[in-house]
Amino acid sequence: MATAVSPLAPASFPDLPPVEGVAFATAAAGIRYKGRTDVLLLRLAEGTTAAGVFTRSKCPSAPVDWCRKALTGGKARGLVVNSGNANAFTGKTGAAAVKLTADIAAKALGCAPDEIFLASTGVIGEPLDATKFEGVLQDCAGRAADAPWLEPAKAIMTTDTYPKGATAKASIGGVEVVICGIAKGAGMIAPDMATMLSFVFTDAPIAAEALQAMLSRSVKGSFNAITVDSDTSTSDTLMLFATGAAAAKGCPRIDEASDRRLAGFRKALDGVLLDLAHQVVKDGEGARHFVGVTVEGAVSASSARRIAKSIADSPLVKTAIAGADANWGRVVMAVGKAGEPADRDRLAISFGPHRVAVNGARDMAYDEEKVSAYMEGQNIDIRVDIGLGSGRATVWTCDLTKEYVEINGDYRS
Amino acid sequence: MATAVSPLAPASFPDLPPVEGVAFATAAAGIRYKGRTDVLLLRLAEGTTAAGVFTRSKCPSAPVDWCRKALTGGKARGLVVNSGNANAFTGKTGAAAVKLTADIAAKALGCAPDEIFLASTGVIGEPLDATKFEGVLQDCAGRAADAPWLEPAKAIMTTDTYPKGATAKASIGGVEVVICGIAKGAGMIAPDMATMLSFVFTDAPIAAEALQAMLSRSVKGSFNAITVDSDTSTSDTLMLFATGAAAAKGCPRIDEASDRRLAGFRKALDGVLLDLAHQVVKDGEGARHFVGVTVEGAVSASSARRIAKSIADSPLVKTAIAGADANWGRVVMAVGKAGEPADRDRLAISFGPHRVAVNGARDMAYDEEKVSAYMEGQNIDIRVDIGLGSGRATVWTCDLTKEYVEINGDYRS
Repeated sequence: MATAVSPLAPASFPDLPPVEGVAFATAAAGIRYKGRTDVLLLRLAEGTTAAGVFTRSKCPSAPVDWCRKALTGGKARGLVVNSGNANAFTGKTGAAAVKLTADIAAKALGCAPDEIFLASTGVIGEPLDATKFEGVLQDCAGRAADAPWLEPAKAIMTTDTYPKGATAKASIGGVEVVICGIAKGAGMIAPDMATMLSFVFTDAPIAAEALQAMLSRSVKGSFNAITVDSDTSTSDTLMLFATGAAAAKGCPRIDEASDRRLAGFRKALDGVLLDLAHQVVKDGEGARHFVGVTVEGAVSASSARRIAKSIADSPLVKTAIAGADANWGRVVMAVGKAGEPADRDRLAISFGPHRVAVNGARDMAYDEEKVSAYMEGQNIDIRVDIGLGSGRATVWTCDLTKEYVEINGDYRS
Repeated sequence: MATAVSPLAPASFPDLPPVEGVAFATAAAGIRYKGRTDVLLLRLAEGTTAAGVFTRSKCPSAPVDWCRKALTGGKARGLVVNSGNANAFTGKTGAAAVKLTADIAAKALGCAPDEIFLASTGVIGEPLDATKFEGVLQDCAGRAADAPWLEPAKAIMTTDTYPKGATAKASIGGVEVVICGIAKGAGMIAPDMATMLSFVFTDAPIAAEALQAMLSRSVKGSFNAITVDSDTSTSDTLMLFATGAAAAKGCPRIDEASDRRLAGFRKALDGVLLDLAHQVVKDGEGARHFVGVTVEGAVSASSARRIAKSIADSPLVKTAIAGADANWGRVVMAVGKAGEPADRDRLAISFGPHRVAVNGARDMAYDEEKVSAYMEGQNIDIRVDIGLGSGRATVWTCDLTKEYVEINGDYRS
């Protein structure tokens, strides 16, 4: 397995401040990995509201089933995340393991089991031995603190090569609130609701329904707009928790997502989610290039999105980028296979500032040498103008390298 | 570029007999490759009927546009195929190149341009210089003979590592007729109508409409049931030509696809197309394993097909097979992402004779060692029982290896 840090990784883990009402600790429960933390217990203050989006897979993991049910209450007091085993496709054993984990965590935190949220990531199909959490979670509860965020970000990693975090501040009714988020990704990344695991926390006092509305909207342009390998995980989970602790500082309680006082918060949330989503792509297994695919001029935004996804998921486009090859013919192919309205003879394609095709044929003015030099860079922008309407969408992906094949040919065994 | 012959290649090119009414010659026109043939001229006897299926890409190549139009006549006198340049996304220049090629071929063969069919395969987006065919096609016409079939099979190759051919005999009204077909494949293989290029010839006297009906039916279980990389080509072309020469031997003329005397011919045609389609998969870029994915128990045949396609297209399933890893968790993932009705807790999954999962969890009886030994073989059968209905479909694919990435990172440059 490749262990070198992705060349696209940020220089360092960002400086995430404490979020009032949130405390956590990690431990090595020996689920699968040796010599590293693999479980996170996170305590949430009483009154914390929760929102979540999950995989659209028809075969979701047991923890996803659990979270969907627990979320109907809109309240959260704790979160348990383990890496190394996804507890997916584990039948009744899986459901029992989830129940046992929630019971152990509820006892450790002094709350009801249905106020505990769970997420697991790792191998699919292996029974998860939840008895390993006994004692471990109790111990975590005793040690829980509000820093450093690097620890939970590390504990939830699988084939990730670096921990992922993002933060932002916003003002609600003149009171500053904070947003902190962590994520893990790497492979099986083509979220249809959210990618793998990401957890975001704020001290803002926002009602669960409003929180959910904001999260569902924000995820469209962030986690749902990335793809590493077109494979949607059984375990995709993105959750947003609001402890409400800022109310003590005078922050107004917000009940409606349409509340105008949320404008700044919404923007900050969008920024945190997009930052985390980009970090997930930049740690795509074997990734060497970070690629933005923007489609404009489609008949609608959803049509633009499907075309952009078709380009971003194409193995031939992704291998061309791995080879630093400005192979726009493969972009044409991917537009064609998307099944969306497109007129070959109106297409225009650019790589970064270089327009390589226009009106359905090669742009005779483009300089192959300059384009090749551009393709050697780490950040590649592909822009396609369909020329039919005003639909626009951007999707982010990475290239497909030999390292991806190497990592995924060796992962389970 | 990898040049070693695929380890999945047949031991030798099959022995294809002449088809009365068909003669051909190949030449090196220098379209792109040096030191090899890259153009095929094929002459068809007067009275030859034609059928074809083409890519569903919204950005088809200029030759596909041409063939669709020419096919409305149902008659064929000639076929020109070149490799090295796909004449796709070439705008007006492409349409002019196609017209010029047909004119040159028509003059060489003494027929009308709209009785000439054209196919091109290779790089997308580069103008095709059709003036290179001038003289070359005239010369081919003079040399045209009915053997050996190895030559046209070679001339149409691009990144293929071996030439592909198949043949069968059938009896119509007590008279023996022959079917011979050639194909090329390699990459950009996820036909939505037909894969890349394949041409099939028979001496049976079958009307164009009946021929088209049979071909459209037969392609579903053969070329439309394979995928190398989920990327649909701009140039997919499968054509079937019937010279009718067997009528001179007393073979009855067939006008309707429903004619019962076609039963044997239909079966033989299915066999030839499936054989060619399998050969295309076995020469998938970088392929080391030939994989059959059968889904049964789905709510319908089309649902089964979509699930099978989702499994066969999944990079994570394909890299696992490359690594000889019986990673059925990824098969579950691919079932889940297909979006088709599935009940996680009824799923059963087998690799060859080894059932690894049943009732939505690991089959506790399976022997990891035996399954691992099975995965080391070249032929892998994946069988998934959805447990909901009686819908059934099989799709064939190959594994995703580092060689695929290598080949496609270097192809154009």
